[in-house]
Amino acid sequence: MNDDDIERTAHAMADAARLAVLPFFRTENLVAEDKGDKIADGGFDPVTEADRAAEKAMRAVLGARRPNDSVIGEEFGKSNGSSGLTWVLDPIDGTRGFVAGSPTWGVLIAASDERGVRLGMIDQPYIGERFWGGFGQARMSGPQGARDLKTRGDRPLAQAILCTTFPEVGSTIEGAAFREVSRACRFTRYGLDCYAYALLAAGHIDLVIEAGLSNYDIQAPIGVIEAAGGIVTDWQGGPALDGGRVIAAAGRAQHAAALEILGRVVAEG
Amino acid sequence: MNDDDIERTAHAMADAARLAVLPFFRTENLVAEDKGDKIADGGFDPVTEADRAAEKAMRAVLGARRPNDSVIGEEFGKSNGSSGLTWVLDPIDGTRGFVAGSPTWGVLIAASDERGVRLGMIDQPYIGERFWGGFGQARMSGPQGARDLKTRGDRPLAQAILCTTFPEVGSTIEGAAFREVSRACRFTRYGLDCYAYALLAAGHIDLVIEAGLSNYDIQAPIGVIEAAGGIVTDWQGGPALDGGRVIAAAGRAQHAAALEILGRVVAEG
Repeated sequence: MNDDDIERTAHAMADAARLAVLPFFRTENLVAEDKGDKIADGGFDPVTEADRAAEKAMRAVLGARRPNDSVIGEEFGKSNGSSGLTWVLDPIDGTRGFVAGSPTWGVLIAASDERGVRLGMIDQPYIGERFWGGFGQARMSGPQGARDLKTRGDRPLAQAILCTTFPEVGSTIEGAAFREVSRACRFTRYGLDCYAYALLAAGHIDLVIEAGLSNYDIQAPIGVIEAAGGIVTDWQGGPALDGGRVIAAAGRAQHAAALEILGRVVAEG
Repeated sequence: MNDDDIERTAHAMADAARLAVLPFFRTENLVAEDKGDKIADGGFDPVTEADRAAEKAMRAVLGARRPNDSVIGEEFGKSNGSSGLTWVLDPIDGTRGFVAGSPTWGVLIAASDERGVRLGMIDQPYIGERFWGGFGQARMSGPQGARDLKTRGDRPLAQAILCTTFPEVGSTIEGAAFREVSRACRFTRYGLDCYAYALLAAGHIDLVIEAGLSNYDIQAPIGVIEAAGGIVTDWQGGPALDGGRVIAAAGRAQHAAALEILGRVVAEG
């Protein structure tokens, strides 16, 4: 396993996805479709041509550079390879934000093996920002240049900034548990999709709590956040690789305090 | 009244605000203070040194270029001039988003006289995006270049995208009225602050509904949106120049349908 080649490949994939997706952003070329029950907030998931174009572009890079790796993508499913490495791709995380013109959707790329996520990458093509972590480093590049990523570390919930995408956060009991954590925090922001995980890795916020995620929604954030010093688990403190109910925290204090509240409310429900 | 000079002055002010505010964004230099009851969502308003630095920079430009105009700013109050033109400034709209590292806060600049808003400008320094409207044109510039702004025009609520910043939207009755509109719309996005008004002017979303606004929160959006073909009023359909309960709409159909729901729920309350 060549760490450098994996990282270079991820950057090449993100570069290709940027070129594929930007011609569709903020244009009338969007072909939104309803994929039914894919997201919690009313069942509407505007999958676009941009989504497909970006995943195809990333798969083409993999086919040329690393044809023996496996691929799991939101749009085109799974293709099996022999290398032991699996690329887990969400070509556009935050399709509603994308459709609304908000610059906080992202391209998610993870490279994982039997030990977990080796490299994660969150790319925001419109702003030109990229956040990545793995192999002992976490970095970002963007309009202000490049720098290391580091989470803000331990602080009490009363000083913590919490993010989630949809205010209702999954089922009734999941939403109740979320709101109990929200009441304990300094303030809560909504609507950022994967960009919230990038802000957590970069040291600006403390917690992201979501429910109903898929593996391709969370593996890239896991790679970035863990490399930056943060923690990502499910609501019981176990692995979050498969998605579902996820909590990402900047430090142990925020993680433990939020987990206690989530567990208590869910148990009472 | 020299239209060109007003527009050039607004751009010079926004340029100066960018330089003043960016050194504070996503740094640990933030000095957040609690200004108590300034915003609806729990009373926390993290006013920063960045806020003050940006307003000072804009006032310095005005002092040099147009010393006879009046100024109303969020941070430093009102100063009276003799020209009949008043600049209405919010140096950082969306201070919570700013503190959380989200790139959707903005610098708001309006030039108004007894006839209303003559020019409005919404600037997002981190992305390097600017939206402005007045004197018969509406334009934006950003990472993808420059273009005209035009709202998306009439469509039924069932196809409309709605934005607001805080899910609770003001008082209990104001929140209930908002949620009734939200249920009628295609989907709702949260957390964008002034950036939502820019997206509406640019033709990506249909409605922004907020409550508890100040004059400096809404005069710049009014200038941009009206020049782009949209409508901004209070919840009774009257002028929104003073803030309060505000609805911005891409077209008459969205505006009338949402206004009917807001008025009905508020009247029932």
